[in-house]
Amino acid sequence: MGLYQVEKLKINFKTLEEFKEFREYGLAELSMLGDLEANLIENELDSPFYGIYQDDKLVARMSLYQISGKYDRYFLPAQDHLELWKLEVLAPYQRNGLGSELISFAKSFGLPIKTNARNRSTLFWEKMGFQPVHYNPVRDRGESPYVWLPEGVSLQV
Amino acid sequence: MGLYQVEKLKINFKTLEEFKEFREYGLAELSMLGDLEANLIENELDSPFYGIYQDDKLVARMSLYQISGKYDRYFLPAQDHLELWKLEVLAPYQRNGLGSELISFAKSFGLPIKTNARNRSTLFWEKMGFQPVHYNPVRDRGESPYVWLPEGVSLQV
Repeated sequence: MGLYQVEKLKINFKTLEEFKEFREYGLAELSMLGDLEANLIENELDSPFYGIYQDDKLVARMSLYQISGKYDRYFLPAQDHLELWKLEVLAPYQRNGLGSELISFAKSFGLPIKTNARNRSTLFWEKMGFQPVHYNPVRDRGESPYVWLPEGVSLQV
Repeated sequence: MGLYQVEKLKINFKTLEEFKEFREYGLAELSMLGDLEANLIENELDSPFYGIYQDDKLVARMSLYQISGKYDRYFLPAQDHLELWKLEVLAPYQRNGLGSELISFAKSFGLPIKTNARNRSTLFWEKMGFQPVHYNPVRDRGESPYVWLPEGVSLQV
């Protein structure tokens, strides 16, 4: 659809090495590394990561995780939706639309999306068509949840 | 106990203005602002924020939220515990032990503590006596949970 091709990432030792370039690298990534090592082969794990390659290098990624409707505390009617985390474009590749391309891809599933607008990124999320929710301290626990609503979906009060 | 005094923050218009200095500023803060404005008086809201002042200026803060044992998915036995977010020291005041002081204060409640070790902060959390959990994708959803265990408490498997 856009200028860049978004791919579901094949998680192998090469991908996990590429993940080290990203600022958000933690237990999720280390856990995949452990799983690969436990199998002791260049296996390809299933994962919720999508990314964009340029010149054979992973330069942007996000994690998209499908949450079952029965755990939905954001959307009306309550329904399956996507949680989007770890949207990140490597610094030299920023401001070229790679983040937007990943988000367009996420929207293409037609499900509502919830993200956490961290580090003063709210203007970016608003430009992407996301909106803030009404903050609920028990549910949101310090996050800044921003959501994208497909046609016919609204917010729980 | 330490070099610095940790205070439960009084949330009024002055505090919310000071919060704007911090990188992590989002819906939680805006929601408190809305609540104050709705009352139209210089009221003081209850909040989960603690901080350290220097020269009459808020220079470090954290949010500590008590989670009921019935929602506990980390500790054994399941119990009330604290979630710690938004630990942040303003840049010119970093590397003086203010972060450690806030964490010592959090530990003084004697409850287990869970945090999310973001942005490659795992070494810091380990130095503070925290440890990683075994990553569980459904529970942890991309976070890097690190926990502090008081005597007699262990981790759920």
